[in-house]
Order: sequence, then C-alpha cells, then structure tokens
Amino acid sequence: MADTLRRNVTPVKVLAIHDGVRSERPDTLATEEPLEIRVAGPDGETQQVAVTMRTPGGDFELAAGFLFTEGLIVPEDVSRVAYCDDLENEEQRYNVVTVTLERAFDVEKLRRNFYASSSCGVCGKATLDDIEVRCAPVAPGPGVPVSVLVSLPEKLREAQKVFERTGGLHAAGLFTVAGDLVTLREDVGRHNAVDKVIGEQLLAGRMPLNHVLQVSGRASFEIVQKAAVAGIPIVSAVSAPSSLAVEAAERFGMTLAGFVRDGRCNVYTHSERVTA
Amino acid sequence: MADTLRRNVTPVKVLAIHDGVRSERPDTLATEEPLEIRVAGPDGETQQVAVTMRTPGGDFELAAGFLFTEGLIVPEDVSRVAYCDDLENEEQRYNVVTVTLERAFDVEKLRRNFYASSSCGVCGKATLDDIEVRCAPVAPGPGVPVSVLVSLPEKLREAQKVFERTGGLHAAGLFTVAGDLVTLREDVGRHNAVDKVIGEQLLAGRMPLNHVLQVSGRASFEIVQKAAVAGIPIVSAVSAPSSLAVEAAERFGMTLAGFVRDGRCNVYTHSERVTA
Repeated sequence: MADTLRRNVTPVKVLAIHDGVRSERPDTLATEEPLEIRVAGPDGETQQVAVTMRTPGGDFELAAGFLFTEGLIVPEDVSRVAYCDDLENEEQRYNVVTVTLERAFDVEKLRRNFYASSSCGVCGKATLDDIEVRCAPVAPGPGVPVSVLVSLPEKLREAQKVFERTGGLHAAGLFTVAGDLVTLREDVGRHNAVDKVIGEQLLAGRMPLNHVLQVSGRASFEIVQKAAVAGIPIVSAVSAPSSLAVEAAERFGMTLAGFVRDGRCNVYTHSERVTA
Repeated sequence: MADTLRRNVTPVKVLAIHDGVRSERPDTLATEEPLEIRVAGPDGETQQVAVTMRTPGGDFELAAGFLFTEGLIVPEDVSRVAYCDDLENEEQRYNVVTVTLERAFDVEKLRRNFYASSSCGVCGKATLDDIEVRCAPVAPGPGVPVSVLVSLPEKLREAQKVFERTGGLHAAGLFTVAGDLVTLREDVGRHNAVDKVIGEQLLAGRMPLNHVLQVSGRASFEIVQKAAVAGIPIVSAVSAPSSLAVEAAERFGMTLAGFVRDGRCNVYTHSERVTA
C-alpha cells in the first residue's frame, strides 16, 4: 500500500487528438497529492501546521525542510519524523507527517501569525513587514569557478534521468563548488523540491549548507529566502530570477545566477563568488 | 509614484559571462512584489487575510479573485475594492488592497481554519478533509470544436505580445468556445494569473464563466479548483496536468485538456465537450 500511495507517477487513460484523429491510450502523469504537516511537542500533543500539494517521496525531508525554511523551527528542534499511525482514514496515512520537537511549540502564536497564501507566494506571513524570515546574511563562503557553475544545469538534468522517469518535474540539486552532486530532489512544486533538499541535509545534521543550489526553473523570492535560511551562499537558476529574488539575494549577501545554460550565465548579485 | 511601483518589469544591472568573457549590461526582470489582501466589513473594521507574491497590475482583480476562488466570499459580497490610504509606509501603499464586503466577515473563523501553505499548494485548508473548496459540479455547458481548442495556446502567446513586453510570465486567458479572447492576465505566479482573470470577470458581474480557460504552463489541482469555483467548464493547459488535477476535473464534471500544441491535444476528462 505504501508503494502504491507514494509512487511519483500515476497512470491515466487519455483521449489523444491529432489532426482530428482520436485515439485512446494510456499515459502517466506526475503524482500530486496533499501532504499535511503536523508538529508534536515533547508531551505528544499534536497540531496541524500546513497542507502542501506535493509529489510523494521525500515526505519527511519536505516536512522538516518546510518547517525550517519557514522559520518555525531550528534544526536542533527535531527529535523524530514519522507518518501518522492513528488516522481514521487509512488511505491518507502516507499523506500526513508529524515532526516531533524537543521543545513545546506555540501553535496559537503560529495561528495568529499565519494566514492564507497563494502559490509561488509567501507562506503565511501575516503582513508585509513579516515577509522576511529571520535569517542572518550568509557567510562569505567559497567561490565557484564559472566553468563549474555553467555545467550544473546539465548535471542536474542527467541526475534527474537517473532519479526517476517521469520527466517534467521541477528539480533542485545541491552541488559542491567542485561540481559534485550532493542531493537531488524533485516535485510538482518547485519550492517543495528546495524544501526536500534542505530537509534531507537537515535530517542528516549538515547545517549550514556551504554549497551551490541549482534549480531547474526560475528563482523567486521564496526560493532565495529558503536557501538563505539554510545558509546556502550561491543559488543558480536555469531561467530568470524575479526582481524580488535579486533584491533579497543582494540583501542576504547571496550570489544569484540566472539563465545558466550553454556555457553562459548572468550573475545578478555578489559576483565576487564566481571565480575565473 | 504609482507608475513606478506598479510596473511589471524592473530594470537591473547584470554581469553576463559568456565563454569566460565578462560584461556588465542592463537587463529587465519580471517584477515580483508582495500584495497584502485585506477584508473590511460594512462597519469598516479591516482584517489582514493573505499575502501573495505577485506581479503588479490587476491588483483589485487578484484580491477579489483570490477571495472568491478560495471560497471565502461570493461575488455578491463585494461592495468596494481599493488600495489602502492609511498606511504609515507610503512605499507599500500600492501593495495593500482592501476588499470591502456587504456583510460581516468572520476573521476568527478564517484564522482557525487557515494555516500556512507552501507554493503550488493548497491555500490554507487546515486538513486533508478540507482541501476541496465547496463548489458544485460545473454546468454541462457548451462544447468547443477541437480546431478552436488547439488554436488557443498560439492565440494566448500572440495576445501576450500585445499585453506586455517582458515575456516569460505565466499567462491565463479566458476564451469563448468560438475562440475569441475575453480576458488575458499575466503574473510571476500562475495561480495569480488565474485569480486575476476570474477576478476581472467577477468585478464586471459576469459569473459563472461559460468559457474556456487556457493556461500557459501546467494544470495543477489548484488551477482546476479555482476554475471550478468560477463555473468554468473547460480548462486547457499547454503542458501536463498533475494526477490530482485530472482527478479533481473528473469529479467537478470539467473538461481538462493538456499538451495542447501543434494541432494536437490530450483530453483527460469529460471529452464529450470537445466536438469535431
């Protein structure tokens, strides 16, 4: 059952129409399912915190990464991550993850401060003044040779081929400044892919992250913000950054590159880390 | 000042590196800025509801559309939409929109039910049981000839060229079943583009929408859900739908097409509306 519920592709039947000719055929789609993230205190009292639509796989990483990059916990808070075992609805069992903390969690404070947010948006920051998660500027950190930087998108695509077979999912990859892949994660939601990568490293006790984060699409404000919380000094995107991503990267002391492809790249902020 | 703050492209300076050769040059990026959505009751009491990252332009439409497609208001509730005029921070004036309602708004209920959500996610539904916004199945509605359906992505791209000059933004277009453009909106967030289109029609008093919604990218669960709330019977995406988008469209009685391009398309649900 776990395998069925957690697979990252879903078979469907589709009516294909080509130049007016209709044919029914099987197809596969990227799986999208809700993940409910719960937080439990040391006394076992559990609270619902968030629901995110994600591609199953790396659920513990996503839950821990989300709570961390949204500024709700620090890495040392996590004592255990598990699927829920007390659900009335057995089918949803693998869509609910509980992160148990070493300390009490003030869910009322969370509720007061968290509101709805639209996609590609700010997760639950109540007012404009709150949109910057508290994060110190990233450390000066290592430089990355430009030859390594421009090689990362192709390495990411190659690694995706190995990782799974759907294609078309958003990917986030963490690379050393020498260009070696540390972690790759995929998701229908690009921010989820970043949270999974950061969460994997968090659960392995490897914060802060002195590496390069390569993302398959664009760089939004929120991707820059999540990377900054994890201390990532260099973010590289295959496509364009947004205006606010550039503004935030400048403020956080982060190097932000975009349009990284075919031997070229644009560096928008802190280009001192991109070496010859 | 309004013009400066609300433009949809932002000039930046970029270090372009091509085959190791570095040159500084000006560039423009899609603008991303936070929009805070507030709701006021008839007594004028105002509450913050959400912050979303969006491309400025169509802010009133986005605010009204978001509240409607998230199931928080019905079209008849809206009495006025306006930028805030009592902000201490004048710079943020055009990033805060207040929707005044004909009825009292129970913000405490909202706070109890809304939690954080990640991007491309479910906006603030507290539990898995709540992720379906209450929406009746869409009406049987009109059929669309397949020749019209496969022409919509190109029409969307052509209309985008007229609409603005940045390129690369997500677009959502509402078309009649005869293929005529009703409304086009763009945004860094694809769900925002859909909310702007629906909000524009809502503010013009045109609900429900007996048209085809064409989106520039993929179709996620949330895009299907938002379209269903507005009564849209046919959703067409240039790229793939997710598994849950297909599941939701099937349940809502909606026709969902994907990979609509180059004279071909895949119809995933309710193909009876796609006529010869």
